[in-house]
Amino acid sequence: MSSHKDNGKTYSPKPINLSMKLADLGEREAIRRLTKHIEHSVAVGIGDDCAAIKLGTDFLLITTDIVAEHTHLPPEATGFQIGWFVTAINLSDIAAKGGRPLGLTLSIGVPASEDIAVLEEIGRGANLCATKHDATIVGGDTKEASQMLVSGAAVGLVKKMDFMPRKGSQVDDIVCVTGPLGRAGGALHALKYLNKGKAALIKDLLEPNPRIPEGQAAAATHGITSSMDISDGLASSLYQLKEINNIGFKIYWDKIPQATTAKKFAGGKPEKEKDFVLYSGGDYELLFTVKPKLLERVTKAIQSIGGHLYPIGAVIEDHDIYLMEKKTKIVIENRGYEHFL
Amino acid sequence: MSSHKDNGKTYSPKPINLSMKLADLGEREAIRRLTKHIEHSVAVGIGDDCAAIKLGTDFLLITTDIVAEHTHLPPEATGFQIGWFVTAINLSDIAAKGGRPLGLTLSIGVPASEDIAVLEEIGRGANLCATKHDATIVGGDTKEASQMLVSGAAVGLVKKMDFMPRKGSQVDDIVCVTGPLGRAGGALHALKYLNKGKAALIKDLLEPNPRIPEGQAAAATHGITSSMDISDGLASSLYQLKEINNIGFKIYWDKIPQATTAKKFAGGKPEKEKDFVLYSGGDYELLFTVKPKLLERVTKAIQSIGGHLYPIGAVIEDHDIYLMEKKTKIVIENRGYEHFL
Repeated sequence: MSSHKDNGKTYSPKPINLSMKLADLGEREAIRRLTKHIEHSVAVGIGDDCAAIKLGTDFLLITTDIVAEHTHLPPEATGFQIGWFVTAINLSDIAAKGGRPLGLTLSIGVPASEDIAVLEEIGRGANLCATKHDATIVGGDTKEASQMLVSGAAVGLVKKMDFMPRKGSQVDDIVCVTGPLGRAGGALHALKYLNKGKAALIKDLLEPNPRIPEGQAAAATHGITSSMDISDGLASSLYQLKEINNIGFKIYWDKIPQATTAKKFAGGKPEKEKDFVLYSGGDYELLFTVKPKLLERVTKAIQSIGGHLYPIGAVIEDHDIYLMEKKTKIVIENRGYEHFL
Repeated sequence: MSSHKDNGKTYSPKPINLSMKLADLGEREAIRRLTKHIEHSVAVGIGDDCAAIKLGTDFLLITTDIVAEHTHLPPEATGFQIGWFVTAINLSDIAAKGGRPLGLTLSIGVPASEDIAVLEEIGRGANLCATKHDATIVGGDTKEASQMLVSGAAVGLVKKMDFMPRKGSQVDDIVCVTGPLGRAGGALHALKYLNKGKAALIKDLLEPNPRIPEGQAAAATHGITSSMDISDGLASSLYQLKEINNIGFKIYWDKIPQATTAKKFAGGKPEKEKDFVLYSGGDYELLFTVKPKLLERVTKAIQSIGGHLYPIGAVIEDHDIYLMEKKTKIVIENRGYEHFL
């Protein structure tokens, strides 16, 4: 669950052999191993953005996400941004299920040699992200570790009837996203060769705004048939929905809202642009499939809270994911961000 | 919150200087820094075992605890034990507030070179500990890291009127614990020089049973005025209650139930015995102050679920913590396990 919340790396599947190290697995497979022996009595378990536990007429939503310093964060990341980021990616999971956040905890492994100011900064960033999105940091733990590692856990609440699972897409449903894609992918790419304006790039990467109001507005319409957050990139997210729902997608390239910086940093190269928009993670928009008859209702509900909804394609019976561009139709590849690779 | 869940190390306060590293702080001070900028709207916040959020007539309890491989776990610890331990110490926080566990999440930073079997083992240990204590592992996340770090977060539920906070001790209340102390301290000590029987010692250290039924039984009596789990040792826990409640304690040495192994590994040295029983963490029993008139009711309630309650002393007005032994009365020192030292 919540297993794939990062920026930029790409992967291609590798064969599994017998003397296996974690480096040979994708992150999702690693989580499957971790949860292999776990007995579930929860309503919706591992494999969705959050676990959902029945609580009267509500579901209690629980999620956790962990970020490691050297492998997930650019060296320029401030403590404030680390705190914001961990909070945001956990809240994004609550948002994807239509939830109202109740509280978050942070637990931090930190080198003993670290300047203590960083802890205050992590707390400040986490608090600002939380309060901006109607959440509260309710607790924390710290322990000495050889590198910085920040883990968040978030709980939220959603009416059972409003809960938006990953499973439920029907053929002809409209595929929608809540905002422009490619911002984080473009920023991660530009960070490698730009010396100026790095602060803005890192902000694009590490200070996403979880779509909490959009998630709640969409959930209340009962027009959403499946929902997840786009943490690993659009392509990877679509492949996850395809697997769960046993369907396919056609996506119209011209309809995908693009971050202005994605086009800018692609420098006119269409392949780079696609890399940022389709195959890079870190934008934390929501991905919905919507009942065609209720598309207008969902759009209006999201607009009423100041958000946006962009229809970008449709669910198809065929078990493939196509990108429709002018007169061409190509298969979108199954790659995006996944860890241990 | 939940800031001090480990075994064996001792600490003494150090002066704080200006160019400060985490190694100069205690772990509790580090958590105070982390939470300095955090705004609270929760009912009971940082500083208690769990945060408590109002949810109708209930409190939703949330806690998090993190364990680092090299600094917190003996090298012989198995994946199963790491999973059990992280689950147990999080559930222990729920137990201390009288809560019913709802679910736990695990998030794990793990080296890419690690054998994947360890993830299955962590999951198996966590699951067994959870199911044994009426809880469920509901989700997980894994990320690559330079060392193994396992963070857990647990949520639980308790009726508002049953919630047992840390704050509430009154003069003349009876101090009680739910089981023998010194098992973990003795085991940690013996591990250093014993070559035989290590497996049993590590089991004593890493497979504690969180006192979930004891916590719930005690909470229902409304006889408990303050409660916490003894994660850092009895002395450290008493000092924490003393600070919060502005009271003191007298504790009778002969009344403290001792783990048989504590006496055994102390080899007849009274100072070692006291080290294990008073100043070592990791036993995860509950520490209560009980209204004198309701002591019998609390005792019977805990016995009715197969548990034990041992009165070991009383709350006093004097702001000191005394150990009464035969005809002597000494001040218990403020030391126990705390991290970053």
